[in-house]
Amino acid sequence: MNNLIPSIRAKKLFSYFSQSIDAILIANSGYPFFDSNFRYLTDAQGGVFEGTFTVVTRKGTTIITSVLEEGIARKTGCRVIAYDSQKKMKSAIKASLKNRKIVGINEAGISVSTVKFLRKNLKGIKLRNIAKELSKSRIIKDDFEIDRLKKAARIASETARKIPEIIRIGMTEREAAAEIDFLLRSFGADAPAFETIAAFGSATSLPHYQSGNRKLKKGSTALFDFGALYKNYRSDITRTFLTKPIDRRIDKIYRVVLQANRAAISRIRPGIKAKDLDAAARKIISDAGYKKYFIHSTGHGLGVSEHDAGSISPRSKDILKENMVFTIEPGIYLPRIGGVRIEDDVIVTSKGSNVITNAPRELIIL
Amino acid sequence: MNNLIPSIRAKKLFSYFSQSIDAILIANSGYPFFDSNFRYLTDAQGGVFEGTFTVVTRKGTTIITSVLEEGIARKTGCRVIAYDSQKKMKSAIKASLKNRKIVGINEAGISVSTVKFLRKNLKGIKLRNIAKELSKSRIIKDDFEIDRLKKAARIASETARKIPEIIRIGMTEREAAAEIDFLLRSFGADAPAFETIAAFGSATSLPHYQSGNRKLKKGSTALFDFGALYKNYRSDITRTFLTKPIDRRIDKIYRVVLQANRAAISRIRPGIKAKDLDAAARKIISDAGYKKYFIHSTGHGLGVSEHDAGSISPRSKDILKENMVFTIEPGIYLPRIGGVRIEDDVIVTSKGSNVITNAPRELIIL
Repeated sequence: MNNLIPSIRAKKLFSYFSQSIDAILIANSGYPFFDSNFRYLTDAQGGVFEGTFTVVTRKGTTIITSVLEEGIARKTGCRVIAYDSQKKMKSAIKASLKNRKIVGINEAGISVSTVKFLRKNLKGIKLRNIAKELSKSRIIKDDFEIDRLKKAARIASETARKIPEIIRIGMTEREAAAEIDFLLRSFGADAPAFETIAAFGSATSLPHYQSGNRKLKKGSTALFDFGALYKNYRSDITRTFLTKPIDRRIDKIYRVVLQANRAAISRIRPGIKAKDLDAAARKIISDAGYKKYFIHSTGHGLGVSEHDAGSISPRSKDILKENMVFTIEPGIYLPRIGGVRIEDDVIVTSKGSNVITNAPRELIIL
Repeated sequence: MNNLIPSIRAKKLFSYFSQSIDAILIANSGYPFFDSNFRYLTDAQGGVFEGTFTVVTRKGTTIITSVLEEGIARKTGCRVIAYDSQKKMKSAIKASLKNRKIVGINEAGISVSTVKFLRKNLKGIKLRNIAKELSKSRIIKDDFEIDRLKKAARIASETARKIPEIIRIGMTEREAAAEIDFLLRSFGADAPAFETIAAFGSATSLPHYQSGNRKLKKGSTALFDFGALYKNYRSDITRTFLTKPIDRRIDKIYRVVLQANRAAISRIRPGIKAKDLDAAARKIISDAGYKKYFIHSTGHGLGVSEHDAGSISPRSKDILKENMVFTIEPGIYLPRIGGVRIEDDVIVTSKGSNVITNAPRELIIL
């Protein structure tokens, strides 16, 4: 069990603390209150890990989990304490933090109830919020993360390439989503990265639509937003297609969105402000007269979470650095008519960018 | 837009308060810090709803959400305030709670950061923890919930019935999971209820295993744990199969687990203690000599969450009441050999129980 990941991540995280922090305690409470820092710091894959705590010190990482998850926890190479009662869980947390004075917690990822529980059981220990340091540490990806993100993006791209073969007039959104999820797994995904969106017709104007029983018609728009989960890492791709006869309104916005996607990607390199990428995409959409129909950010960070640290938005304070990974996903949504979004996943390299979702971006007529 | 659900749920929840509560504020923060009470109280289906707040008063329910989700939010029939900036979001929260003095929040489902944000922006308002009342209100299902849970269970059962047709020797766990997810959607699921588990061979001894590239062999065990998401409601079913030649050790524990499943289900009726159901299942497993290999609870509540309010465990304080819905899922896990779990979803009726997962429970040889 020679997994280097937990120690690499711990070392990196501790390097961000200016104040003295003796240990870090991450709570992975229970559905849906899971803190993705648990997976990030331990490399635990699969399982549920409800009621799990992780203690990270400069000497190593300990997973305190139910006997239910013990087998999976041990695969990480971390120290594991498995409990079969609340009492044993409490003693394990106390023992792991013995003689520690200042313990970092993630206030953005822990419930008020859990903090109350910790305060009651950890008398004399000062809990300090380390949400910012966690975010700073995670925004730059290490080599293990880059490899997995590339693989996750490759699986999503191979799936996207197959879409013209699997989608037919008359098919429902639900059937399309089922076909996509099947392809994702057959190309090597552990699971879909999130609930796959297949939207047809005017439903494409709703960016967060849930697939239903709508059938694909002639002269319609078809939008697919999906990704692959691969060893805890997630890709996120969107491609939009048309069916004949072509709706000229959609064809027109497709060209604008594609230009916006390319404009943002072409500017990516270390030192650039994230908000300037957003501005580049937004300017093209605004200049074409669709300013008020681009109703979301240009992109978000990718990693263990689908929305990882980092934002490509008008208010973002992020400055691009090598090995940041994020989406570029401009879109135009015409209410009750239809929408177009073209989304890619991009790594910031030393000199520019590496677009890791390589499915065609040019308009394809299904 | 005559959706009765938000007002029915609000009325029921307010009936649980002995103290005066002027309003309820639920935060659906961001992945993965979603509070399922948001879906429960608003009936919002699909979408992501990051950074969404819901204010419930005796006069109605308001959803404060990004313009991104506005279209989906409006389908609920609730009052909707859509924002396109942090500033507008803050004003909307303040305006919705104007003149309110005591506001209930769910401390089990809100992060420390979000509560700090609220305290800063809601000066003069007292925030009171209503986690217990939410849980009490949700443990008894209303008619809309019962209908959707039945439908979700029916979809999962139809899928389970098809397993012998789709599973073949040589197939990988990943392929099996893909086939199951495909069937779930084709029978009407909005999506799989959670990440489908397909486990083969000794992997069946890990209750929370993640499907991988393991192939189904002769003389092996195959365990499938999955469910359907249907209009926000989730089913959860597990069936275990064998391939020839039959492993006598697994065949033996199968009989014990099936007996334990039946023993627990046969005792279900209003007034019974949940821990007595757990004891009934556990006794059969203990008497057969497998006490230490049944390493989890007998069941959990089902609803909007996969693990909803209510627990069938040795330490549960729940007493069964009509229209509670939960899983019964005893299991025996022999390390490095294999495991068996048989899981059903059950509604407590006025006189007994209604098992809503109707796929065969008897051992099937694939």
